[in-house]
Amino acid sequence: MRYELYYWPSIQGRGEFIRLALEEAGADYVDVARGGKRGMAKMMALLDGKGVTHPPYAPPFLKAGKFVIAQTAEILFFLGPRLKLAPRDEEGRLWAHQLQLTISDLVVRIHDTHHPVSGWLYFEEQRPAAKRRTKDFWRYQVPKMLGYFERVLAKNGGKYTVGKSLTYVDLSLFQIIEGMRYAFPRRMKRYEKKIPGLVSLRDRVAQRPRIAAYLASERRIPFSQWGIYRYFKELDA
Amino acid sequence: MRYELYYWPSIQGRGEFIRLALEEAGADYVDVARGGKRGMAKMMALLDGKGVTHPPYAPPFLKAGKFVIAQTAEILFFLGPRLKLAPRDEEGRLWAHQLQLTISDLVVRIHDTHHPVSGWLYFEEQRPAAKRRTKDFWRYQVPKMLGYFERVLAKNGGKYTVGKSLTYVDLSLFQIIEGMRYAFPRRMKRYEKKIPGLVSLRDRVAQRPRIAAYLASERRIPFSQWGIYRYFKELDA
Repeated sequence: MRYELYYWPSIQGRGEFIRLALEEAGADYVDVARGGKRGMAKMMALLDGKGVTHPPYAPPFLKAGKFVIAQTAEILFFLGPRLKLAPRDEEGRLWAHQLQLTISDLVVRIHDTHHPVSGWLYFEEQRPAAKRRTKDFWRYQVPKMLGYFERVLAKNGGKYTVGKSLTYVDLSLFQIIEGMRYAFPRRMKRYEKKIPGLVSLRDRVAQRPRIAAYLASERRIPFSQWGIYRYFKELDA
Repeated sequence: MRYELYYWPSIQGRGEFIRLALEEAGADYVDVARGGKRGMAKMMALLDGKGVTHPPYAPPFLKAGKFVIAQTAEILFFLGPRLKLAPRDEEGRLWAHQLQLTISDLVVRIHDTHHPVSGWLYFEEQRPAAKRRTKDFWRYQVPKMLGYFERVLAKNGGKYTVGKSLTYVDLSLFQIIEGMRYAFPRRMKRYEKKIPGLVSLRDRVAQRPRIAAYLASERRIPFSQWGIYRYFKELDA
């Protein structure tokens, strides 16, 4: 099965959670929109929805045989057992999905620190709100959300978040830590002592042979000022 | 099977999407935290997570036999086929879930119109940002998101959003329209001509015998200034 991933070609964004899973599994996949103009045109045609039974609302989406599936967490739910990156039983599979949905909530919160008013305006046009939102994010949301994942990980023995082997949830938590280090280097440096389990999970994921090879390759798009995670010195007090 | 729903007892909030599904199906369920102090204590004990294999991050969550499941869209994914409110085949079930996840995204956007900076501050403390965010929401997000659902509904024949019978997605879209009418009565009055299919779906859902009985009962918590949807005259220009 060759999977077709559709996502914006110049950012990690939400697509990165899918890329990490496909890479760790050594799956046969093509990152369609990175294939130049023709790839982008193909993505936009599917988004537009004519001739697509189940038109996606937004990238990322995945084509897998007859399936066209959107929503990051749902794509991972679908791929999980197929890539051996999730439990197969209903209870475990739902638990992994539930954690992934909470990661999706966190991603929105991270993005909105720098764009609390509008994704259509520049950061500079919403600076005061961004500063206040970031303060709130670090005061309440980071401790609550990352604290939750730290406890879930510890409760499961500390090595993996779900079950007895690596899942897409572990890969996604790696990406969260990486992204937060990019966006908030000073704050994260101070905060990481409170989440030693997640930091150690991040290190183990980074060292997995396929992930390490991927991160060193050109397939890994660098962090930038256009994705979920953006660095603004004034938000990293 | 008696389902136990856990959600904040004084608001519709995200719990309402689950309540509507349970009510439409005539399911045997108890809204635990509405059972006074003891109910609230039971909810908080499960949230705290000691002795719970899969601790929920936040309400709503559902107890169904051995399962404790959180995240609104996941609860509906789980309940859907059990309550005959979703297709049973993988493709249809994933499609309904995908739409529900996009509804979840919309819910965050609706909430953040009045609280773009912090859920811990009053509206009055974030008024300028709320006005700008609401303007952006109505200019870009409402047409894009509700326009999408309008097209999806039309593509499926106009009667139901998914498949050939009522699903939880239809019930959730009813709740979106109701809530937006509460929060933005003037704006919605103008906008509804652009989404005749969704408005007609809303009317058909409201007239279903079990939903009509539920809406007229005390089990339906009224809209208020504490939920996802809140009315502020200045946001409803």
